Order: sequence, then structure tokens, then C-alpha cells
Amino acid sequence: MTEDGMTARIIDGKAYAAGLRGRIGDHVARLQKDHGLTPGLAVVLVGNDPASEVYVRNKGIATKEVGMNSFEFKLPADTSEEDLLAKVRELNADPSVHGILVQFPVPDQISQQKVIDTISPDKDVDGLHPVNAGRLASGLDGLVSCTPLGCLMLIKDVMADIAGKNAVVIGRSNLVGKPVAQLLLKENCTVTIAHSRTADLAKVAASADILVAAVGRAKMVKGDWVKPGAIVIDVGMNRIPAPEKGEGKTRLVGDVDFEAAKEVAGAITPVPGGVGPMTIACLLHNTLIAACRQAGIAAPEGL
Amino acid sequence: MTEDGMTARIIDGKAYAAGLRGRIGDHVARLQKDHGLTPGLAVVLVGNDPASEVYVRNKGIATKEVGMNSFEFKLPADTSEEDLLAKVRELNADPSVHGILVQFPVPDQISQQKVIDTISPDKDVDGLHPVNAGRLASGLDGLVSCTPLGCLMLIKDVMADIAGKNAVVIGRSNLVGKPVAQLLLKENCTVTIAHSRTADLAKVAASADILVAAVGRAKMVKGDWVKPGAIVIDVGMNRIPAPEKGEGKTRLVGDVDFEAAKEVAGAITPVPGGVGPMTIACLLHNTLIAACRQAGIAAPEGL
Ligand SMILES: NC(=O)c1ccc[n+]([C@@H]2O[C@H](COP(=O)([O-])OP(=O)(O)OC[C@H]3O[C@@H](n4cnc5c(N)ncnc54)[C@H](OP(=O)(O)O)[C@@H]3O)[C@@H](O)[C@H]2O)c1
Ligand SMILES: NC(=O)c1ccc[n+]([C@@H]2O[C@H](COP(=O)([O-])OP(=O)(O)OC[C@H]3O[C@@H](n4cnc5c(N)ncnc54)[C@H](OP(=O)(O)O)[C@@H]3O)[C@@H](O)[C@H]2O)c1
Repeated sequence: MTEDGMTARIIDGKAYAAGLRGRIGDHVARLQKDHGLTPGLAVVLVGNDPASEVYVRNKGIATKEVGMNSFEFKLPADTSEEDLLAKVRELNADPSVHGILVQFPVPDQISQQKVIDTISPDKDVDGLHPVNAGRLASGLDGLVSCTPLGCLMLIKDVMADIAGKNAVVIGRSNLVGKPVAQLLLKENCTVTIAHSRTADLAKVAASADILVAAVGRAKMVKGDWVKPGAIVIDVGMNRIPAPEKGEGKTRLVGDVDFEAAKEVAGAITPVPGGVGPMTIACLLHNTLIAACRQAGIAAPEGL
Repeated sequence: MTEDGMTARIIDGKAYAAGLRGRIGDHVARLQKDHGLTPGLAVVLVGNDPASEVYVRNKGIATKEVGMNSFEFKLPADTSEEDLLAKVRELNADPSVHGILVQFPVPDQISQQKVIDTISPDKDVDGLHPVNAGRLASGLDGLVSCTPLGCLMLIKDVMADIAGKNAVVIGRSNLVGKPVAQLLLKENCTVTIAHSRTADLAKVAASADILVAAVGRAKMVKGDWVKPGAIVIDVGMNRIPAPEKGEGKTRLVGDVDFEAAKEVAGAITPVPGGVGPMTIACLLHNTLIAACRQAGIAAPEGL
């Protein structure tokens, strides 16, 4: 139960993402009209992992829906590292491509870090290049990875000014935990980063006005880990068996015990329908920003 | 008073730094003997700020003491940005120079960020280039700014394994606070970053097993902000009036109320004689590492 005795506001990431995609579409139309510029996103998939194929297809559809150009490249599973890097360099040099995303994981013969290091930081719409991590850490403009950016947008939709709030981020991956922490620090939160070596995680979590869980463990965060009234952002996407849906069926749950936490939190993201839909929308956001910067046009702020 | 009723161990940064410089000197001698390589550090000073001149002179002396080459460049106060950047590029290209340090602050006509961005990340022994910030944030090998590295060495000298400890860093500058936080996270501490917008700083500080103050406010951290037995690292260097030494005299104090805190802490750095002496020693450490990497020789670990 929250302080005022109500259950939490359920943060509708799907609706927020749809609104964001709409605003991006408007900007793309304006860019085309005023500058003759159509942002282009290139997605490279190596091999044919079915889950990755779905992601890539969805990204392509969303890209075209906002009026951007979508370029898809499917390379065979036995592509050599050098061939993939050559493809990336070709896209770096292609002026119609403003954003490059290589779908991870890549097959074992290819070093993921080398791929990341080869993508031009200006086109690194996944925000994974060390230059972009460094620009974020140093408080400079760069490209910020999509899921963390989506988390921040949802938090700020609940509470526009979060300065001075205690934020706890559980998880410290380069993809999610660390950049979320940097973004919250930039917003002037007091930020605690917790992880698998944290002692008394329940107590640390319970100190949070803003709690972000990016762990990958189904329902790990219990209701009594949540401070009454806190904003809870659940990044986790975990498949668990769902025998109630039939034999062998599964369902998606987050890192937070949603049913218990929503009785305590002030606002909480569901899984699915919370952070998940924000990731693709933020990818389009980053592609738009990257296209503007590459063309020397003022990038839209606060989309 | 600490838990066992003793006052804190006073961490002798001067002695630790002297030992470190000795070990660096041994490595330099070995590099010369085995590989004919003498690491070189170039220090560039623009203008004639008296404090900066002292720093630069001391760096030069320490560099030569460990057997490295020291190159000093003094440019007039009205040097243009383009001329300074040209100097930096020349040093980037010079194979006898393995580390480059531009003494900050630079005069107003020069952008500090542009200087940082121009130094080759491989020679950026101050660890300020966004690529190095990003490599640190991403957990990759890079060059780490000197004062944070010195803080970590002193902490680990007190307690070799700090995994799972609660670390609180007060201050979030790119030069000190943020990289200290990254280093402590890499050592598996649970890390909280506090700053001027933090609510109830006393309570946040009192949760720390390891407390690092990098604020720049004389004696801000009171004795009752310190958890009994904690390791306290005081990065602050603040000049305050010292009428007891004579009219107009000053003395150096840290960000921590040392006299009160040492009755509570388990270990604490004094000011002066704590973190201060580590900075130049770590600059030499970074120059040695950079020289080895540039020459393709395995860099010494755990110096
Ligand atoms: N919604 C989206 O669009 C989206 C996007 C990306 C990821 N995700 C999901 O988010 C989750 C995290 O992803 P990721 O890429 O950050 O994962 P990751 O790289 O595996 O990182 C997981 C983090 O959680 C920490 N951790 C593991 N077990 C823990 C425990 N028992 N207690 C506390 N911390 C623990 C780990 O700590 P150590 O560092 O100490 O090992 C690590 O820092 C996954 O479920 C993933 O599917 C969702
Ligand atoms: N020992 C050495 O060799 C060495 C080397 C470098 C620096 N230092 C010393 O270390 C200190 C910090 O240096 P710096 O370069 O990091 O300084 P800085 O860039 O001025 O950063 C100071 C940090 O302290 C925070 N802060 C300021 N007032 C505060 C308050 N009342 N409560 C909590 N936090 C507060 C600021 O917060 P906001 O971000 O919210 O403004 C900022 O993050 C200085 O005394 C400096 O002389 C020593």
C-alpha cells in the first residue's frame, strides 16, 4: 500500500513509446520538408537466431513507420570477423546511414568488443562505443544506450524533477545498469549501484525513492524491498514456465515481484508493457539525433 | 573511537608513494636494460601561474628521479588554442613521448575540453580523455586519472579485498569523484555517489564502510558522519587562515574534520601527507604503463 493508501500507478510504457514514436515521426517529416534529409538506420544480423530475427524485423517495421529509411543486412552464420568489420566500415562511410546497429549476440568467431569499437561513435545508436560511454560519464553529449534512456523517460514522466532523490540501480552491466546510474546522476539523484556482491540488498533497495532493477532474475525484488511510494522501474525480461497456459508454455516476468510491489510503490512498470516497448522507440530517437548531428542541424531536445 | 576502542590507523600516503616510486624506478631500469626503452613524460604549461609552476617543477623532478625522460614546455599566457593543439599533436606523434600532461587550468582563450580531446588516449596519463573515461566505465583497460588511482591504492593497502563493502563517494567531478566510484565498483563495492544535491548527506556518509571525500570544503565531513571502523579517504586540499602561524599565514586542511574523524574511523588519510603525494606517483605509474603498451611490452601489474 502506498503512503496515501492507494496501489501504485502502473506506468504504461507501451503508450509512452507510441507517443514518442509519434513525435519522432513528426520530426522526421519536418526534417524531410525543411532539409531534404531522411534519417537512415542500418541493422546488421549475423546468423539466423530466431529471437534475433524477430527483433530485427520489428526494428525494421518501426523504423519505416516513423518515415526513416531502414537498411537490413543478413550475413551468414559463418561470416568472418574481418568481413563483418568491413561491412561496418562501409556503413560508417555511407552518408545515407545515420545509425548502425549490429544485433548481438554475434557468433563465437567474432569479437563483440571489436564490432563495438569499429562502429563510428557518431552512428553508434546503441550507445555502446567506449567513446559514448565516456561522453556520458563525462557529462558530454553523446549517444546513450536505448534501454537506459527509456528508463529515464518513464521516470521523468512520473516525476519531472528528481534532483536529490535516492536512486538505487540493481545491476551494473555496460548495456543497462551503468548507463542508467549515469543518467540518474546527471539528473542530480544520489545514486547507489548494487550488484551480485552487494551485502543486504533488501535493505539497500528499501532506501530507494527510485528503484531500477536490471538483473535478469525472475521476481527477485520482493514487495518489502520497496519503499512506500517509490518509483519502481523493472528492466528484467525473464521467461518462466506457465503451465496454466498449457503444457510447455512460458510467460514473461520482470525482476520485480509485480503483484506485491504494486501494493507498496507509488508507480511501477509492468512486464511486459513497461520498459520493453521503450527500447525500440529510443533507438529511433537516437537515430534521429544522430542524423541531425551528422547533418549539422540542431537536434530536437526533450522529445 | 573505533570498535576496538583504538584511534584510527593514520594512512601514510607519503611513505606509500615513496615505495611506489621506488618500484616504478626498478621497472624503468629493467625496461632500459631489457628493451632499451626509456619512458618519457611531456608536461605543457601555458602562462605563469605560480602554483602551476611549482606543480610542473615537482613533476619534472619526480620524473627524472625514477629514471624517466622529462620534457617541459612553457608556452606564453597568450598562446592561441590552435598553437596549443598543434603542440599536443606534435607530442602525440613523438615516439620518445609516452605520456602527455597539459597543466590545467589553461587561459580563457583555450578550451580545456578541446585540449583533452586532442591528446592521444594512449598518451593521456591524466586519464581525462572521454575514451579513457569510457574504457574505465566499460571495464576495459585504459589510463585512469591519477588521484583516483592513488585513492584506490591506499584503500587496498588497508584492506586488500573490499568486495561487498559499502562505499560512499562525496563529489562527482570527472577528475576525482566519478572515476573513484568506477574503481570501487570494479572492486565489487556497493557504491553510492553523493554530491551537493544529496539530501541528508550525514546519514548517507554514515552508511559507508569506505568513505571518500572529494568536495573542496574544509572539514565538511564531521566525526559523527563516520561509521565506526570505516576507511576514510580525504581528497580535499583546502587552504584556510592559520593566524596561529602568524598574520596572513594559511594551512592546508582536507574535506574531513580529521581530529574528530580519527577517533571513529578504522583508518584515515591525513591532509597533507595522505592522498596528495599519491598523485604524482600515479602519474609516473601511468607513464610507465603507457610506455609499455605503446612499445607492445607487457605492462607491470599491481605495482
Ligand atoms: N526491456 C528491455 O528492452 C531490456 C533490454 C536489455 C536488457 N533487458 C533485461 O534486463 C535484465 C538485465 O540485463 P543486462 O544486460 O543488464 O544483464 P547482465 O549483463 O547479465 O547484468 C546483470 C546484472 O545483475 C547483477 N546480478 C545478477 N544476479 C544478482 C543478484 N542475485 N543480486 C544482485 N544483482 C545481481 C549482475 O551483477 P554482477 O555484475 O555482480 O555479476 C549484473 O551486474 C535482463 O533480464 C535482460 O533480459 C531488458
Ligand atoms: N590530493 C590531490 O592530489 C587532489 C587532486 C585533485 C583534487 N583535489 C582536491 O579534491 C577536492 C575536490 O576536487 P574536484 O576537482 O573533484 O572538485 P570539483 O570539480 O569542484 O567537484 C567538487 C564536487 O563536490 C561536490 N560538492 C560541493 N559542495 C558540496 C556539498 N556541500 N555537499 C556535498 N557535495 C558537495 C560537488 O557537487 P556538484 O557536482 O553537485 O556540484 C562536486 O561534485 C578539492 O579540494 C581539490 O583541491 C586533490
